[in-house]
Amino acid sequence: MLFRQLFDAETSTYTYLVADPNAREAALVDPVLEQVERDLKLIRELGLTLKYCLETHVHADHITGTGKLRELTGCQGVVPVQAKAQCADHFIGHGETLQVGSITIEAIATLGHTDSHMSYRVHGDRVLTGDSLLIRGCGRTDFQSGDPGLMYDHVTQHLFTLPDETLVYPGHDYRGHTVSTIGEEKRWNPRFVDLQTGKLRSRESFIALMNSLNLPQPKKIQEAVPANEQCGQVAAAV
Amino acid sequence: MLFRQLFDAETSTYTYLVADPNAREAALVDPVLEQVERDLKLIRELGLTLKYCLETHVHADHITGTGKLRELTGCQGVVPVQAKAQCADHFIGHGETLQVGSITIEAIATLGHTDSHMSYRVHGDRVLTGDSLLIRGCGRTDFQSGDPGLMYDHVTQHLFTLPDETLVYPGHDYRGHTVSTIGEEKRWNPRFVDLQTGKLRSRESFIALMNSLNLPQPKKIQEAVPANEQCGQVAAAV
Repeated sequence: MLFRQLFDAETSTYTYLVADPNAREAALVDPVLEQVERDLKLIRELGLTLKYCLETHVHADHITGTGKLRELTGCQGVVPVQAKAQCADHFIGHGETLQVGSITIEAIATLGHTDSHMSYRVHGDRVLTGDSLLIRGCGRTDFQSGDPGLMYDHVTQHLFTLPDETLVYPGHDYRGHTVSTIGEEKRWNPRFVDLQTGKLRSRESFIALMNSLNLPQPKKIQEAVPANEQCGQVAAAV
Repeated sequence: MLFRQLFDAETSTYTYLVADPNAREAALVDPVLEQVERDLKLIRELGLTLKYCLETHVHADHITGTGKLRELTGCQGVVPVQAKAQCADHFIGHGETLQVGSITIEAIATLGHTDSHMSYRVHGDRVLTGDSLLIRGCGRTDFQSGDPGLMYDHVTQHLFTLPDETLVYPGHDYRGHTVSTIGEEKRWNPRFVDLQTGKLRSRESFIALMNSLNLPQPKKIQEAVPANEQCGQVAAAV
C-alpha cells in the first residue's frame, strides 16, 4: 500500500492519499480545495488514477477539494449516509467497504461531531478518524448537529474496540502530532480518560466536559458548510 | 519499531521520535526548543527513556531542544563530526551506527547545506535527511559553510544509491508533504532532475541552479546558530 499524510497549514487539516501502486488506483480522504493542485501533482507523479474522494463529514473549517477533483479527474465523490450533500456520487453506510485495488476501506460510523460522520479503516491496520477521535482530543460537539453523547458512544464502541495497535490518523492536529494508536488514546486521551486513574470517563462526565468548553465559532463556518454541501463547488454554493 | 513524525508549525521543522518499545529506549532527531514539553510528554506517556538527541546539523532556522532535553533527562547529545558544537556528548562520523534497543541508526554524510551535516538511516528502511534532500527540493547552500558541489555529490552518491523504496523523511517541508521515497526523488526532484527528460542534472547544472536562487536570510539565523553551537542552551549562548 502507498499511504501519504498531507497537511494544510492554514486550517491544520490532514488529507490522506491511499493507493495500491500495483493496481494504480488511489483514493483521497478529506481533500482541501486550496491543495487540489498539490494533491493532483503527486497523484500524477506516482502514476495513479484517482478513483474516489471520500469525506469523513461536511466540514465547517475548510472547503473540500472533492468537487474540483471530480471535475478534473472524473473520480467519485463519497460522503457518509445522511450527509446533507446531494452532490455526492455515493453515500456510504456503516460497515460498508470500498476497494482501491487490493486495499479495503471500511466505513465506521463515528457520529457526534456532526450527525453524519464516518471514520475510514484502511487496510485493517489504521483508521482515519476525521473530526471524531483526535490525538489526545476529539472534535467539538457544540454546533452543526453535534451531540456529545453520540460522540462518546461511537468512539468508545466503534473505535476503542479496534485492536490497540491500530494506527489513528486524525483529520486535524494543532500541536504537530501526526499519528497515534487506539491503545495510546484509550490510556491518554483526556477527553475520554480520567488521567489520574487511567480509567474511562463515564458518559455523563464526558458530556459535561464537552458542554463546558465554550469554543469560538470556526472562522470559515458560514462559507464552508454551504460550499461543502455542494462538494466544495464554491461558485454554485455562494 | 515505534516511529513518530512531529511538526513545529512556526519553523516548519520535523522532529522524529525513534524507539524500541520492547527495550523502552528512544532517540529524538532534531528536537525544537519550543516543543520540548510536547516531546517529553509523549516520551513519558509511551513509557520510554530518552537515550539520544541527534542533530542532523547546526540549524540556522530554529533552536535545538537538545540542551534542555539533556538537562531534563540525562540523554546524550549527538552531533556530526566537525560540527562546531563543543557541547556535544558524542560526535558521530559517516558510517557509524548507534543502537536504540534493537534499532540501528546509521549516520550518512550529506554535506552541502553545512560542512558537517549527517542524514540518519533508521531500521534500514527509512532515512531522515535533515536539510540535505527535501521532498522535491533540497536545503539551501548559500550560507553557513554551504557548498552546492558537495550537496550534489553526497545526495547523488550517498542517498540516491539507497534502495528506491527507502522512505525519505525530511527536516522541513513547506507544502504539507510528510514523506517521500528515494525512487520518487530520483525521478521528480526538480533540483536534481531535469523533469522534461527524467534524467539526473549534471553537477554543473545543479551548482548553477543553486547559485541562482537568491534566497532571503532565515529570520532566526543570528540567534539560532550561536545558540545551537551550545546545544540550544540559549542563556549561555546569548
